[in-house]
Amino acid sequence: MLQSKLFPKTQKQAPRDEISANAQLLIRAGFIDKLMAGVYTFLPLGFRVLKKIENIIREEMVGAGGQEILMPALQPKENWDKTGRWETMNDLYRIKDARDKEFALGPTHEEIIFPFLKKTISSYKDLPVYVFQIQNKFRMELRAKSGLLRGREFLMKDFYSFHANENDRDRYYDLMIDIYKRVFARAGVGKETYFTFAPGGTFSKYSDEFQTVTEAGEDVVHICDKCRKAINNEIFREQRKCPQCGKSDFRKEKAIEVGNIFKLKNKFAEDFDLKFKDKDGHEKFVITACYGIGLGRLMGAVVEVNHDDKGIIWPEAVAPFRIHLLLLNNELRIKNKADELYKDLQKAKIEVLYDDRDDVSAGEKFAEADLIGIPYRVVVSEKTAAQNKLEIKKRNEAKARLITKKELLKYV
Amino acid sequence: MLQSKLFPKTQKQAPRDEISANAQLLIRAGFIDKLMAGVYTFLPLGFRVLKKIENIIREEMVGAGGQEILMPALQPKENWDKTGRWETMNDLYRIKDARDKEFALGPTHEEIIFPFLKKTISSYKDLPVYVFQIQNKFRMELRAKSGLLRGREFLMKDFYSFHANENDRDRYYDLMIDIYKRVFARAGVGKETYFTFAPGGTFSKYSDEFQTVTEAGEDVVHICDKCRKAINNEIFREQRKCPQCGKSDFRKEKAIEVGNIFKLKNKFAEDFDLKFKDKDGHEKFVITACYGIGLGRLMGAVVEVNHDDKGIIWPEAVAPFRIHLLLLNNELRIKNKADELYKDLQKAKIEVLYDDRDDVSAGEKFAEADLIGIPYRVVVSEKTAAQNKLEIKKRNEAKARLITKKELLKYV
Repeated sequence: MLQSKLFPKTQKQAPRDEISANAQLLIRAGFIDKLMAGVYTFLPLGFRVLKKIENIIREEMVGAGGQEILMPALQPKENWDKTGRWETMNDLYRIKDARDKEFALGPTHEEIIFPFLKKTISSYKDLPVYVFQIQNKFRMELRAKSGLLRGREFLMKDFYSFHANENDRDRYYDLMIDIYKRVFARAGVGKETYFTFAPGGTFSKYSDEFQTVTEAGEDVVHICDKCRKAINNEIFREQRKCPQCGKSDFRKEKAIEVGNIFKLKNKFAEDFDLKFKDKDGHEKFVITACYGIGLGRLMGAVVEVNHDDKGIIWPEAVAPFRIHLLLLNNELRIKNKADELYKDLQKAKIEVLYDDRDDVSAGEKFAEADLIGIPYRVVVSEKTAAQNKLEIKKRNEAKARLITKKELLKYV
Repeated sequence: MLQSKLFPKTQKQAPRDEISANAQLLIRAGFIDKLMAGVYTFLPLGFRVLKKIENIIREEMVGAGGQEILMPALQPKENWDKTGRWETMNDLYRIKDARDKEFALGPTHEEIIFPFLKKTISSYKDLPVYVFQIQNKFRMELRAKSGLLRGREFLMKDFYSFHANENDRDRYYDLMIDIYKRVFARAGVGKETYFTFAPGGTFSKYSDEFQTVTEAGEDVVHICDKCRKAINNEIFREQRKCPQCGKSDFRKEKAIEVGNIFKLKNKFAEDFDLKFKDKDGHEKFVITACYGIGLGRLMGAVVEVNHDDKGIIWPEAVAPFRIHLLLLNNELRIKNKADELYKDLQKAKIEVLYDDRDDVSAGEKFAEADLIGIPYRVVVSEKTAAQNKLEIKKRNEAKARLITKKELLKYV
């Protein structure tokens, strides 16, 4: 893509009320725009990152046998009355229409998927069922102040698995833990992300979190480096021992929850009378688990973990482009070289942002490239043209080097 | 995909309160589920169709130079006060949070994109800008009863173009008309869809609709077959002449509006003071147009136009799968043939739904295949196996014929 056409331009300043690094950098670099606290527009650069994260998650969920669906955000009050959460959930947005009919704006989808299963499931032969969606959720966060880490409106992947017995569920749940690790590794926060034991709420025996260690985190985790697992603050207060190895050698860190998975107790199955007939004709409750990842939050966590004082350092798999091509000289002879390279890279199906602007200084182009944070910066200038070479520098390395076009195409 | 694993099963009956053909067929065939009037879940089959429609639209919008973004559904009341539509728009969902702050649930996004442009545009050099999104919208339809044709919550593509002068806008607008025709042709309703002159509202000189002729339509259009254009009822009442050729030879038809494009007057630019400096340093209002397509509505229209009394007849480009492979015999020798064909088709990257179920009769399988409506039905049975052939039938043709596997792979 030509940077002269990219909308919008980068900004010198982030809004004064943004304190988190992810929001500051993403706004300045033109990835997102803040509409109000906790509510953002994804701009063309940000949308590209979001789609890459979405595709990683989708691939892994389909790999786990998940079938993709799309449930509504607008949900009837009756469903929320059945679980009691119309009254108890503080951060639920409630709507009344012109006929005084009331709706919830979905912060989660148990209230929708359980009654739907009830309509379609009757026998053990209908199980297991694995469904997921990537969908917009709403939560009434009155004090949203962490950029993409905590939103009022946010894209989330929610996956629901339904089983005939606990053994089958537990086996699948363990598989999903590995799949979650792969998602976070692919998104570029694998090293910093810890499987974390946390207490369940009223409807779950316990819950398992995936916590990414970063100064920006609102949570505290206690990491057992021996097991590469963590416990959260509540578990820590109850038992100062690692549930894996029993030792008490913890490292305390701030962290942000990037994923959360639950084995559900019978609460929702009971609320919606979700039963099936087993082989012997006995009626039993369907055994379930659910598995969430916030896409925007993951994007925010990736930025929190991968940036320096100059800007973002995108991991390759989620970068908006693979190469940032900078033209530093407006002479036609040199511009032709850059144009040709741009075409060759496009032909080779390499995503490239080409800074072709003729009214921006070299210094500004370098500064913006660092701010935007594309993994490979390739420079075409008078100096490189004289040697019939290109200058390449990785965003996360200090030193640039000269290579030929052939070497570049082979390298990336 | 194996049909034995496909979630959920087809249904004998649609809900009694569904009167539209699109909703009845899509619900019975397991493409969508009705949560409440005008609000549907897209199930795995329906989600696949939705994604195909989305991809056609995205390809065409990117081809038109559009840059994709994603704007929020939750929008501050202040923005809607500025345009006066907080008071005047009857079908706006209004929300109040626990601190009495008010929000609109976006039925459209002029109130968001115009103030954002105001922040980022200053000079003629910043224009034109082409942005679009594929995003969830909300409208308080109190009497939603047309299935996917009129929803309370619905996916929409909205595209906004911003220009320095009317000439540039008008040239682009004409280009978009051709692109819209291509979208509807690719989605399988090109023949039935007419460019339709309609009066503009308070903020547009006039509006242009794309109307698909179907008995299920809630609109009436008057078609000039000479020009292949239509006028809507309001225009018809004012002038009984074709704006193109001046003749009065009209054919009256029911139709559904699948797309709507507007050249905007200065209303929104004035409300949000969206100006730019031209080459001479003069301040002028940005000239704009907007272009909408409802994805679910288009899916509903495709079904209304393409079905018979047995079920849906998907156009190839938006079908959930290309081939529906039916195994009609549970003998291992014959099942092995079907299994092998399934693998070969997958290797050839042909999307195939394989009805491998061993507890469903041949009659039921045929009936379900007709209901689901995949373009090519391929049968493996004792009869076909005896001749070392396959039976192929197109959903929109009556006659089946025998071909070899090699011929099939070449054919599809």
